Amino acid sequence: MAKQEDIFKNVVSHAKEYGFIFPSSEVYDGLSAVYDYAQNGVELKKNIREYWWKSMVQMNENIVGLDAAILMHPTTWKASGHVDAFNDPLIDNKDSKKRYRADVLVEDHAEKINQKAQKEIEKARARFGDAFNEEEFVATNARVGEYLSKYKEILSRLAKGMTDDLQDVKALIEELEIADPETGSRNWTDVKQFNLMFGTKLGASADSAMDLYLRPETAQGIFLNFLNVQKSGRMKIPFGIAQTGKAFRNEIVARQFIFRMREFEQMEMQFFVRPGEEMKWYHHWKETRLNWHLSLGLGKENYRFHDHEKLAHYANAAADIEFNFPFGFKELEGIHSRTDFDLKAHEQYSGRKLQYFDPELNENYVPYVVETSVGLDRMFLAVFATSLQEETLEDGSTRTVLKLPSVLAPTKAAILPLVKKDGLPDIAKKIIDDLKWDFNVAYDEKDAVGRRYRRQDALGTPFCITVDHQTIEDETVTIRHRDTMKQDRVKIAELKDIIENEVSMKNWLMKM
Amino acid sequence: MAKQEDIFKNVVSHAKEYGFIFPSSEVYDGLSAVYDYAQNGVELKKNIREYWWKSMVQMNENIVGLDAAILMHPTTWKASGHVDAFNDPLIDNKDSKKRYRADVLVEDHAEKINQKAQKEIEKARARFGDAFNEEEFVATNARVGEYLSKYKEILSRLAKGMTDDLQDVKALIEELEIADPETGSRNWTDVKQFNLMFGTKLGASADSAMDLYLRPETAQGIFLNFLNVQKSGRMKIPFGIAQTGKAFRNEIVARQFIFRMREFEQMEMQFFVRPGEEMKWYHHWKETRLNWHLSLGLGKENYRFHDHEKLAHYANAAADIEFNFPFGFKELEGIHSRTDFDLKAHEQYSGRKLQYFDPELNENYVPYVVETSVGLDRMFLAVFATSLQEETLEDGSTRTVLKLPSVLAPTKAAILPLVKKDGLPDIAKKIIDDLKWDFNVAYDEKDAVGRRYRRQDALGTPFCITVDHQTIEDETVTIRHRDTMKQDRVKIAELKDIIENEVSMKNWLMKM
Repeated sequence: MAKQEDIFKNVVSHAKEYGFIFPSSEVYDGLSAVYDYAQNGVELKKNIREYWWKSMVQMNENIVGLDAAILMHPTTWKASGHVDAFNDPLIDNKDSKKRYRADVLVEDHAEKINQKAQKEIEKARARFGDAFNEEEFVATNARVGEYLSKYKEILSRLAKGMTDDLQDVKALIEELEIADPETGSRNWTDVKQFNLMFGTKLGASADSAMDLYLRPETAQGIFLNFLNVQKSGRMKIPFGIAQTGKAFRNEIVARQFIFRMREFEQMEMQFFVRPGEEMKWYHHWKETRLNWHLSLGLGKENYRFHDHEKLAHYANAAADIEFNFPFGFKELEGIHSRTDFDLKAHEQYSGRKLQYFDPELNENYVPYVVETSVGLDRMFLAVFATSLQEETLEDGSTRTVLKLPSVLAPTKAAILPLVKKDGLPDIAKKIIDDLKWDFNVAYDEKDAVGRRYRRQDALGTPFCITVDHQTIEDETVTIRHRDTMKQDRVKIAELKDIIENEVSMKNWLMKM
Repeated sequence: MAKQEDIFKNVVSHAKEYGFIFPSSEVYDGLSAVYDYAQNGVELKKNIREYWWKSMVQMNENIVGLDAAILMHPTTWKASGHVDAFNDPLIDNKDSKKRYRADVLVEDHAEKINQKAQKEIEKARARFGDAFNEEEFVATNARVGEYLSKYKEILSRLAKGMTDDLQDVKALIEELEIADPETGSRNWTDVKQFNLMFGTKLGASADSAMDLYLRPETAQGIFLNFLNVQKSGRMKIPFGIAQTGKAFRNEIVARQFIFRMREFEQMEMQFFVRPGEEMKWYHHWKETRLNWHLSLGLGKENYRFHDHEKLAHYANAAADIEFNFPFGFKELEGIHSRTDFDLKAHEQYSGRKLQYFDPELNENYVPYVVETSVGLDRMFLAVFATSLQEETLEDGSTRTVLKLPSVLAPTKAAILPLVKKDGLPDIAKKIIDDLKWDFNVAYDEKDAVGRRYRRQDALGTPFCITVDHQTIEDETVTIRHRDTMKQDRVKIAELKDIIENEVSMKNWLMKM
């Protein structure tokens, strides 16, 4: 556990030091749970977005794009259920005036009890070695059994309280004698629902101003445009609409760096299908999306499915693709069979038909929808954290290397003159002027070449190209590979093809 | 004038019919001055954004990117002057309860007087033909002269009132007897300032909630990150930071389609220079940015500079690149020499140094800033409206063609089987499977091929590739060019190079 925390701290500090992610408004001491993508981060994020977009829109004849506005008509969120049901249960401590998410207070308390059991189990495992049987140990050790059953009982009572009556959650907090983590006070208010949407007002006049929300998800922009896209694009079911864009949630407990931010970006595709065919497509998209992730080569062992047992009000099947983040397996992407819930709700609230005429069946219907939804920022964190590695080299020294999938690397090649004289910088700049039309390339002449290699390793640059005195003789350079540190001597004229072959999206997408 | 209005109406309806732009939340009767980019619009917008980004970030070694959050610390907007000075002057009609921008009421009134003069001038021009001398006519015709001097007087008094005292504007409205355009009432309130920023609240607790704004411009995100980028990227002055992203303004009078929206996207580059060198860079960027626009080939005559006489509080020089929109020449891009105003203001409000150590001068200073700022949506409108043309063909028939610069076209080629049988669709799909890795391509088999050509013309697709019976024999297809309608017979194997040569960003950027 300590090691995971260290890894995570290292990720955050590397992201800042090497220009990937800065805390937002840092000059003014930052804005909680909001981050800015810096000069290298913006390129990595753009590349992830583009890799997704190409795989969705460019590769699939029956999927088209969309870019709906963040501001939408407020009735949208009435119909979608967000106005009434997109809430967090909050509780205030009357003494400290601090506010908490009631469910998180209880969960944290339960987790502490679970940790006690896990500690005993680990101790026993260390003592008995290979002979240790966890199931048997839990069954026979009264204290551990008690911890675990208490843990489960609390979580099940919490779940029940969250759906039935929030006062049960309050009762649970009092019964467990949960105290304000900062002050120890147990003087709590009732639990109240707090809506997570950011509100704002459109228009100036007091009597005509309209209460708006910043969209809490991008999906509804697709649903509202479904018929316009279908008609103007002459789309036939099944077809998909893909969109990337910002969404906003006024999270009370926002933590874990860019994993849960108040402003974040989604990459969503809503696939419209015939009613009754949604499960076929649900399974198709589960598999297809996992393959997309696997194509990046971050390791199959870092992904797993989590099929939802408890379904949202709009779904008849749902699964997450979970990723092994530095703080454990967490949701990276959701695949949801959303039924016709959203389209029917918009029909009801708008009084307009949102139906498709199916020429093959010769009938009108409201399509069913299968959604695939990735958090772009989470995807960034998954790629970045997994790629950041500390290697021990043969000579015992260590190097920090960011082994980004080369297709996503912010800079594809750094061109380095061995020394700052003898015309080597001019040759390096000529190479840049030739390569820059096709790739993001960088120039670096500062410090010894070994240090420059290390710096490019830390930035994730797949290739370092070094111009030396032999270059003047025979127009060759050395090209160094980030991951293997192997160096080859190649002709300048070959560089473009070597880089292209390694970094082109085409070659990477072909692995899917 | 009537013709301009017709052209504009045509632009708006073509944008909707062919899937470029839909009114936002149309199902709920729309949201005023907010639009969604549809399946073809999103691609055109993406291509414009990428063309700008490549020319800024990829081509220039000393310009890097950034993607700052929309939500920023509220003190940012105090320092930038937006909290105190980003206002529109509003006036209410007491009878109708309608609210107007006071300056727009006066401007519209003045414009009506100007129109009277212009009408007389046009009548005289029609009467006298080539012999007509406008200057002489205005000088000798008392009525026209009176109209024009009244027009100028009103505008100059308005300008003075806007800076000195808004009550002068109120007095002007009363003196000119301007009535509520909808009801005719002249019963006005005083003129009041209304801030254009959208407000929202961060956090849940009443005592700790923070008043935030949706950023009204992207520039401040660059200024706040200036030192972090400079240090982590080891940048040396002069250097630039480029960013694209959404900004929000609660416009009272939002009109002209996507020209002035409440939610819009900017493409900005802030260039940090030595104090005293800003005018050199200001002129450099004026010229460079105009060349970028000209590289798209929309016609030199459609651009002009407008040098500002009245400067904003932060600027010591400013110019617009104006474009000939369907409603006349209007600002497309701004180039501003912003001095050290913003960085110094953030130093003052944050108490932190935002200084650069210049190793050549061996001194610390707050850099000066030259800004280039394009509205992405305006750029879209400029490209789209200019490209939309109605042509009369040799046989007297007309065609609607969207002559987009091919580098920006949403779809690069449509592959059309001549008939839906004899294996031609299969060959067409094989061609698509080969080309789709490199380009956005489309398949269309519906209707006669002539109608399909017209449809692709209206979508702006540069190439139509038709598969016919000869294709089965010799692996050739016809390739039809959108603008000339010329058709060539070429080998399937040649298609990729032909398309690449015409649409690659590299080839277009090389024209700059």
